[in-house]
Amino acid sequence: MQKITILIHCKDQKSIIASVTNYIASIEGNIIYLDQHVDADENVFFMRLECELESEKWPIEAIKADFETNLALPFDMDWKIYPQQQKPRMALFVSKYDHCLYDILGRYSAGELPLEIPVIISNHEDLKKVAEQFAIPFYCVPFTKEIKEIGEKEQLELLDQYNIDFIVLARYMQIITPKLIEKYQNNIINIHHSFLPAFPGAKPYHSAFKRGVKIIGATSHYVTEGLDEGPIIEQDIARVTHSHSIEDFIMKGRDLERMVLARAIKLHAERKTMVYNNKTVVFL
Amino acid sequence: MQKITILIHCKDQKSIIASVTNYIASIEGNIIYLDQHVDADENVFFMRLECELESEKWPIEAIKADFETNLALPFDMDWKIYPQQQKPRMALFVSKYDHCLYDILGRYSAGELPLEIPVIISNHEDLKKVAEQFAIPFYCVPFTKEIKEIGEKEQLELLDQYNIDFIVLARYMQIITPKLIEKYQNNIINIHHSFLPAFPGAKPYHSAFKRGVKIIGATSHYVTEGLDEGPIIEQDIARVTHSHSIEDFIMKGRDLERMVLARAIKLHAERKTMVYNNKTVVFL
Amino acid sequence: MQKITILIHCKDQKSIIASVTNYIASIEGNIIYLDQHVDADENVFFMRLECELESEKWPIEAIKADFETNLALPFDMDWKIYPQQQKPRMALFVSKYDHCLYDILGRYSAGELPLEIPVIISNHEDLKKVAEQFAIPFYCVPFTKEIKEIGEKEQLELLDQYNIDFIVLARYMQIITPKLIEKYQNNIINIHHSFLPAFPGAKPYHSAFKRGVKIIGATSHYVTEGLDEGPIIEQDIARVTHSHSIEDFIMKGRDLERMVLARAIKLHAERKTMVYNNKTVVFL
Amino acid sequence: MQKITILIHCKDQKSIIASVTNYIASIEGNIIYLDQHVDADENVFFMRLECELESEKWPIEAIKADFETNLALPFDMDWKIYPQQQKPRMALFVSKYDHCLYDILGRYSAGELPLEIPVIISNHEDLKKVAEQFAIPFYCVPFTKEIKEIGEKEQLELLDQYNIDFIVLARYMQIITPKLIEKYQNNIINIHHSFLPAFPGAKPYHSAFKRGVKIIGATSHYVTEGLDEGPIIEQDIARVTHSHSIEDFIMKGRDLERMVLARAIKLHAERKTMVYNNKTVVFL
Repeated sequence: MQKITILIHCKDQKSIIASVTNYIASIEGNIIYLDQHVDADENVFFMRLECELESEKWPIEAIKADFETNLALPFDMDWKIYPQQQKPRMALFVSKYDHCLYDILGRYSAGELPLEIPVIISNHEDLKKVAEQFAIPFYCVPFTKEIKEIGEKEQLELLDQYNIDFIVLARYMQIITPKLIEKYQNNIINIHHSFLPAFPGAKPYHSAFKRGVKIIGATSHYVTEGLDEGPIIEQDIARVTHSHSIEDFIMKGRDLERMVLARAIKLHAERKTMVYNNKTVVFL
Repeated sequence: MQKITILIHCKDQKSIIASVTNYIASIEGNIIYLDQHVDADENVFFMRLECELESEKWPIEAIKADFETNLALPFDMDWKIYPQQQKPRMALFVSKYDHCLYDILGRYSAGELPLEIPVIISNHEDLKKVAEQFAIPFYCVPFTKEIKEIGEKEQLELLDQYNIDFIVLARYMQIITPKLIEKYQNNIINIHHSFLPAFPGAKPYHSAFKRGVKIIGATSHYVTEGLDEGPIIEQDIARVTHSHSIEDFIMKGRDLERMVLARAIKLHAERKTMVYNNKTVVFL
Repeated sequence: MQKITILIHCKDQKSIIASVTNYIASIEGNIIYLDQHVDADENVFFMRLECELESEKWPIEAIKADFETNLALPFDMDWKIYPQQQKPRMALFVSKYDHCLYDILGRYSAGELPLEIPVIISNHEDLKKVAEQFAIPFYCVPFTKEIKEIGEKEQLELLDQYNIDFIVLARYMQIITPKLIEKYQNNIINIHHSFLPAFPGAKPYHSAFKRGVKIIGATSHYVTEGLDEGPIIEQDIARVTHSHSIEDFIMKGRDLERMVLARAIKLHAERKTMVYNNKTVVFL
Repeated sequence: MQKITILIHCKDQKSIIASVTNYIASIEGNIIYLDQHVDADENVFFMRLECELESEKWPIEAIKADFETNLALPFDMDWKIYPQQQKPRMALFVSKYDHCLYDILGRYSAGELPLEIPVIISNHEDLKKVAEQFAIPFYCVPFTKEIKEIGEKEQLELLDQYNIDFIVLARYMQIITPKLIEKYQNNIINIHHSFLPAFPGAKPYHSAFKRGVKIIGATSHYVTEGLDEGPIIEQDIARVTHSHSIEDFIMKGRDLERMVLARAIKLHAERKTMVYNNKTVVFL
């Protein structure tokens, strides 16, 4: 027996669900999860389905071929099928802040994340010791405006070498180049330390403090070329009062950053997110 | 065109979703919402589906007959089909507390609740003036241990007279008799002022204060014969500190009671709740 | 015995707390609440103090005179002393939305708000019937760009006539004129339907929907001349998902607007807010 | 200059705040934080005060002597004065669960906790490798009913040897003996995986699942002889739905346990908690 996850999106049409569930029935699959969403304004249909089936009788490659012919073509679907035992491979990009890094590696070590972390890449040497604590290969790839072509080339080679599926920017403080963004479209996750769209860009805690807000937030989103404008995966907030200093905002914010980034990573690794029209559909 | 809501539960079996969605396709219905749940421990399947179809071509009574023959019988389903324009009729039971009553009537007047409130029943005269403010018939039905047969009889007659579908106890401070519970099974909603199962019974804010908790809560649940033991529909909490007195707990709690009860009423009226094994499935 | 509330702000200096508490001791007052805040960046001191004392032996006017001479002058304080039994008088400004109005009047009728509501003013006739339900005088004061001087004059006369201390804009959809803002400085409370500073201005729910946020919010703030830029009193948020339509955002938002505005009104009426540097100090 | 923290509790009396703040003024101290609480039912006064003063002119030992004579004796106070640079020393007790351990050590390594962790004690060998990753001495002290006198003796010796101020049970799965509880009164912090008082004892997630709750929680509290009955320091909750399995409850609960325990540790280490009458006063 194996479990597979199917993601579909296409123009909304009658009989999609019936056709897909009929197909699952025809391969003797047992549906253990089905959720769907129709974007009524855009007339787009999304579906996520998990099912269990006999892997010997119904090998995944045969299913994919069937699916393409019998469903994807007639309905003009974008689709993906993943065997659940196949864990995605994630590269961590970091700079000098260590709180998200410790949190992710702690969760990873405690067996909470369904993914592999084969490599950590940084533009500084500072966090090498943390990578060593957790025995994960660490590469320092300097990155500044002047040498960004060299940096980008090195990054791409490492991502290839380690066969990376998606990238997490755990408070990585450098720009991601368009070439990386294009190659890893909807596969680069950033954590921004404000409830976007409030306070994009640099120093959001300082801006929040100055504005006198009563809640601060953090936002994880897919990286696009517009700074802090990509599709939002997850957000959360914490209450603050007049008695909190900027340092308190930053400290409380670290907890938000950790939690929100960890949740986004988990959702992505479990293939629960779909991107459309600069928004996400997140099937919980 | 009309919209209908279909609720199903039955033993989990292969092909249920395919069969139901095939049927919807056969009556040219457009599925606008589908959610399902499998209770793996109990092996029970639940589904909620909304679809849009031509009411003249496919009258609701014909659909019901079809559904019974072609789906309900072969799968041994419990099922209900509701036309969405048919609003359920709700009776409000109150005693002396007015905050939930004002909240519900305010929401009702503001057009937020998809239901009718034809009658308010109380064991005291105190809130008659509120019913009058909102021009809703009010009946005082005294209810004590000594006269509970008389009270129960009057309540049942009023519920019949006003053709009531479900009852909401908006801080009604008397016991509901087994006969009412049986007649309105899974159709009587109570609000309890604690996060159950903590602090069941009387004076939960006093108990919470004494215990020194840092969060207080409220719970709406369907009424069963066990006091405060029925299936939970919705819960919420608020933070408290050492600086809050019992009076503060009660005041903060009023906001919780209002919100939690209003959400439960809305979920029930929109037919988003299903009860099984003393738990609820709530399709959001 | 009477209870008084004292609010102070001044430049931060040594011995302020000692001097104030010594003074309270000298009039045999029993301090039942004391909270203070130092804005370290601006070097400003804030204090809120409640005490209980014998009203015959220590009449409020004598205390005020003493306080001015012995404390306010030497420390160059801004200060206010309120007897707690003196309830502030609040004018409600509304347009066509009724949900905040019903909520406030429900709470007021249920005895939850320590204030008087002698008058409701609107630029439309629509909500007159709600005012009548609660037996509160209602005035329709038309207000458009063309006639804003007339409108402003009528508003000011009504506010004078009803001896109004502060104004609440319960989804009032017209601009407040600079003359009103100046006259009721830090005494006009607005509710904006977003977590400011995100989505200021018109149609915030539509903007939030388009951006694909995972949380929506509401903000109550004092009105200043900059649109939605005044000092924030209270904010709260609710989670949304891809499955929520704009209509769902609006409906969930109504609950946020109600709660956030009700809390801000209560804080203001209990003299728990102080404004400085376009921010609020809120003593809970 | 040095910063000190003063904690006081005593019977509520007039002039306490004036006397204490006068004393601070007399030693030229600058009050940077003052919060107080009166438990009106029990007639008890609590105060927490931080001030900054010249350490050479006003050495801490002289202040303590002064304070005892001039304030503590006349008001019959329980009191403590801490120089803020003196970090408390914390022992971590663990068993087999590693998620709280990773979280605490990650935060500690990232410099977020104002404390020292000189030793980790466990009744199993499993987590030795985690201690080694973070280079903290680890001792396995087996502990069962049969050998509890030996275990307790070893624990007490290690606590002495490492000069421990307080103990954190990071999902330590053995009973703490009365001798340890007495020696470290109000200095042993446990994390329980439910919102107490709901679901005390073993397997709270299983009980919560069975009851069909819509929120789960975690509670950190000081350890007393009654199981899960000690003074609550901090609680938090997460929403769950019918779609969550027991495994989901456990996974969501791990996040709650981490956060709630980390907050309680920080509050305790910053001397922000006081215990009275089996409740805590937590000065934020």
